[in-house]
Amino acid sequence: MHPGKSAARPLMRIEVERRHIHRLLNHGPVTMISVAHAGRRNVMAAAWVMPLDFEPPKFAAVVAGDTFTRELLVASRQCVLHAPTTAQVELVYAVGTTTGRDEDKFERHRIATSPARTVMAPLVDDCAAWIECRLIDEPGIDQRHDLFVLEATCAWADDAIFESGRWKFAPGGRRTIHHEAGGRFFATGDMIEVRR
Amino acid sequence: MHPGKSAARPLMRIEVERRHIHRLLNHGPVTMISVAHAGRRNVMAAAWVMPLDFEPPKFAAVVAGDTFTRELLVASRQCVLHAPTTAQVELVYAVGTTTGRDEDKFERHRIATSPARTVMAPLVDDCAAWIECRLIDEPGIDQRHDLFVLEATCAWADDAIFESGRWKFAPGGRRTIHHEAGGRFFATGDMIEVRR
Repeated sequence: MHPGKSAARPLMRIEVERRHIHRLLNHGPVTMISVAHAGRRNVMAAAWVMPLDFEPPKFAAVVAGDTFTRELLVASRQCVLHAPTTAQVELVYAVGTTTGRDEDKFERHRIATSPARTVMAPLVDDCAAWIECRLIDEPGIDQRHDLFVLEATCAWADDAIFESGRWKFAPGGRRTIHHEAGGRFFATGDMIEVRR
Repeated sequence: MHPGKSAARPLMRIEVERRHIHRLLNHGPVTMISVAHAGRRNVMAAAWVMPLDFEPPKFAAVVAGDTFTRELLVASRQCVLHAPTTAQVELVYAVGTTTGRDEDKFERHRIATSPARTVMAPLVDDCAAWIECRLIDEPGIDQRHDLFVLEATCAWADDAIFESGRWKFAPGGRRTIHHEAGGRFFATGDMIEVRR
């Protein structure tokens, strides 16, 4: 196993308190969305995802009309939102630029997964955070804006970088990532805390 | 004028091509939203803002029901979305934690502004980007989710840090910012470009 291979590190996944779930995406990182239905599964990249409410924790997500992810999301009414890390930019780009309709992306890209607690969609291993969600009925905006409202059923974070409701990125360590365009990402940068 | 005072630097505001407007917020920075109507004006911080479409460029924004900003947004059907910088975290926090209903925030915080081209809402000086918007009718989601759909009428960026559709943040220079919670922000960090 070559150095940096993520599987060398044991999975450390702590449950996130409901009141802190919105903070997993409050800083606007790019996400991956996984879905599963009737023996099929898929995962795609999605930058247009944001918190929508604190309690119950809700999110808004844009999922384009021609995607296999949308087909499985609408059929299963479930998904998992992931916050991937700097170690996963190639994977995020790969799942964001290919379709899973004709080929299983998990096999093609050798994506390790773990079972979720409340949904059939898989958790992609080695992310910074995972939010299991159910789809909320919000007729019209799906057709007009490809926009979906999701309610978190539970959420998890890697306790090496998120603890007690706060991100704690170490210098040189893995961080969440933000997508500019066309495979160009920014790492989440230095913390700036306002003097109160 | 003390060192670092932003007014020492001339305003460099270039118009952004419509096809690049979504990129101003694609990486998920915190925003400020300015509004104006019938002689009143306001500005607030908003982290829950994201692109919604490429062309015409649209955005989704959460504006809570009890805010003065929402009152002026709904009355005027216009606003400006701003991407503030690392030099403005105190300002973002200040306008995000006070109301402008009883006191003009621009006067209170001595916020320098410039006129917009297509809307009455002012442009807050020294931001990284400005997106002039009109409100799109999307009945229901405003009441159920405090969610508003905005269409960009034009947009501007500071050409020292955004040029030809790309962010170009320099080491040690001003960057856009992302809000975690409670006055804790992250600077937009290092660029990571996927090998293709």
